[in-house]
Amino acid sequence: MVLLHPVTMRKELAGLARSAAVTVTTEKTTPQSRHPGKNCRYCFCFYFISYFYVFLCLQRNDIAQALRLYSEDRTGLVDYALKSTGAKVINTGDTETYGTCFPRLWCYYHAEAILEPDVSRGNCWAFKGHKGSATIQLPVTIRPTGFSVEHIPKSMSPTGRIDNAPKDFSVYGLDNPNDKLETLLGKFTYDQNGTPVQTFFIQPKDVKTYKIIELRVESNWGNPTHTCIYRFRVHGDLQK
Amino acid sequence: MVLLHPVTMRKELAGLARSAAVTVTTEKTTPQSRHPGKNCRYCFCFYFISYFYVFLCLQRNDIAQALRLYSEDRTGLVDYALKSTGAKVINTGDTETYGTCFPRLWCYYHAEAILEPDVSRGNCWAFKGHKGSATIQLPVTIRPTGFSVEHIPKSMSPTGRIDNAPKDFSVYGLDNPNDKLETLLGKFTYDQNGTPVQTFFIQPKDVKTYKIIELRVESNWGNPTHTCIYRFRVHGDLQK
Amino acid sequence: MVLLHPVTMRKELAGLARSAAVTVTTEKTTPQSRHPGKNCRYCFCFYFISYFYVFLCLQRNDIAQALRLYSEDRTGLVDYALKSTGAKVINTGDTETYGTCFPRLWCYYHAEAILEPDVSRGNCWAFKGHKGSATIQLPVTIRPTGFSVEHIPKSMSPTGRIDNAPKDFSVYGLDNPNDKLETLLGKFTYDQNGTPVQTFFIQPKDVKTYKIIELRVESNWGNPTHTCIYRFRVHGDLQK
Repeated sequence: MVLLHPVTMRKELAGLARSAAVTVTTEKTTPQSRHPGKNCRYCFCFYFISYFYVFLCLQRNDIAQALRLYSEDRTGLVDYALKSTGAKVINTGDTETYGTCFPRLWCYYHAEAILEPDVSRGNCWAFKGHKGSATIQLPVTIRPTGFSVEHIPKSMSPTGRIDNAPKDFSVYGLDNPNDKLETLLGKFTYDQNGTPVQTFFIQPKDVKTYKIIELRVESNWGNPTHTCIYRFRVHGDLQK
Repeated sequence: MVLLHPVTMRKELAGLARSAAVTVTTEKTTPQSRHPGKNCRYCFCFYFISYFYVFLCLQRNDIAQALRLYSEDRTGLVDYALKSTGAKVINTGDTETYGTCFPRLWCYYHAEAILEPDVSRGNCWAFKGHKGSATIQLPVTIRPTGFSVEHIPKSMSPTGRIDNAPKDFSVYGLDNPNDKLETLLGKFTYDQNGTPVQTFFIQPKDVKTYKIIELRVESNWGNPTHTCIYRFRVHGDLQK
Repeated sequence: MVLLHPVTMRKELAGLARSAAVTVTTEKTTPQSRHPGKNCRYCFCFYFISYFYVFLCLQRNDIAQALRLYSEDRTGLVDYALKSTGAKVINTGDTETYGTCFPRLWCYYHAEAILEPDVSRGNCWAFKGHKGSATIQLPVTIRPTGFSVEHIPKSMSPTGRIDNAPKDFSVYGLDNPNDKLETLLGKFTYDQNGTPVQTFFIQPKDVKTYKIIELRVESNWGNPTHTCIYRFRVHGDLQK
């Protein structure tokens, strides 16, 4: 960040103003007449006022961008594992849902909480112990590029701890629901001290395309009875 | 935006501070003693510090305002077509819902997705082709002043396109559900490159009051199979 | 807010930058060489550029904090009366639900709208007149520290008024559902001109622990027919 020449700044201002939808009236004066060279005090005042504009524009731009990202599912990335688009949990293996679910189909329904945007406290899929898995059938075939895991922040937990949050987990790609030869897409760690939504990217170069993704949680942050998954997002490129 | 006289600025500061709930201690010195006239360096410093305050206040005010607007249904306008207040879709004419809906009543249920706040991807009313209509009965009689159409942003679409978004559409006012003499309230175009929520205002002077509003989509942005409406809001003044 | 010494400022900058996740390259020069003492113009420029950084950092920090609070249930406080965590309305006394609810169990279901995060217009518990009560069983025993009442803002009301908002209300703690000796935890007034979510704190020192909380609305802001409660939150410390 350096003090810019007034001409450069006016251009920048115009660009910023356009993006931030703030009207800046750019007077049609020759830059020379406004930039007297040696009269540094005048020049400084000009800089000062200009910076004021830049600040206001930058600020509104920043606020708008922050809100846009927030409204775009907090990640700005397409989630292919969204239940409302047709994604569903087709298998939870040996995972024992924490709480009652009978008949077995109801357990899948419970697990599908991880495919829904509502992450109010309690709206999670809870399973016994610290190991659990969910096989998710996406509505379309994609080349995965990353995954997001969401949990409530510590400040929203009654105990001040989120020891039931997942810690180490791995994600696999499957060719069909009964595929025994799963492909490991990545091993990741959800940080209990990080932001609520954490995105983990993979190198998509060497990755095949998949319609079935398996999430395997391998540990949690210390809770002896159960683990909670609030939301799991799958990001990627649509296979054409 | 010009450099203000310190006295004017102190007043502005106080006003801003009040609105932004930031405490500014305004010292009880005579403005003259703080404004030595020719000692411009001192004066400049005063301006500088004052502007710092103004910035902080303006900024917090801006953030608060942006979040308020966001929390106020993203428009700051009352939506009279909100399902939770009693609005419902009473007719969809010849529109063929894209996907299955049997019996016919179920189709209206599908169409009512446009009256609900949840606009997660997939939570839309999809109909075949690019022409469709929905007749909405509001819970109260209003003098319409505008309409908002919402779609997901391009960044949230797997294809990067939103060709299934509505393009040209018109809105009509009806006196009763079987009214053959509808009144055109306006013809509008949803811009696929614009913001997700787009509000279209009409001149309310010449507008009668209505309890039934019809949305007629006339084209989409190029999708050959179907069109999706995520949300349709009706704004106006309550008829007393 | 005073003009800081460059060394102090650099430290502050580094701290701010860390918290706002903005990279600031701090050059490894001796502060003396950058602070020539009497060459005030140079010094001023340094201050100016530094403040620019501070502004940007402060601003992004402010935006991030505002959005964090917004995403943390708008209060930053744990809500123990959240339906998704197991809280439920077990009694509404003589309160007559405004609208039909038959059988009686359905009325409790209506009342449980106050324990849910969705506060779209209409998603409230409406009861006849201006007096009503709801006894809420929390999923855990807590030492209450405060309560939040939420209503829609005036700008979201068709009439521009929120005369159906609660005004005076009191909150009681009960030892068991049939407890006749309730303990008054506090008397509060919801301000119709305030923010939509208003939190009322109590002095938790003298407060016992409770699992059952009763909300008693004693008046509204003038509506002759009914009162609406959008959401009621219970805050406190978990009893270990």
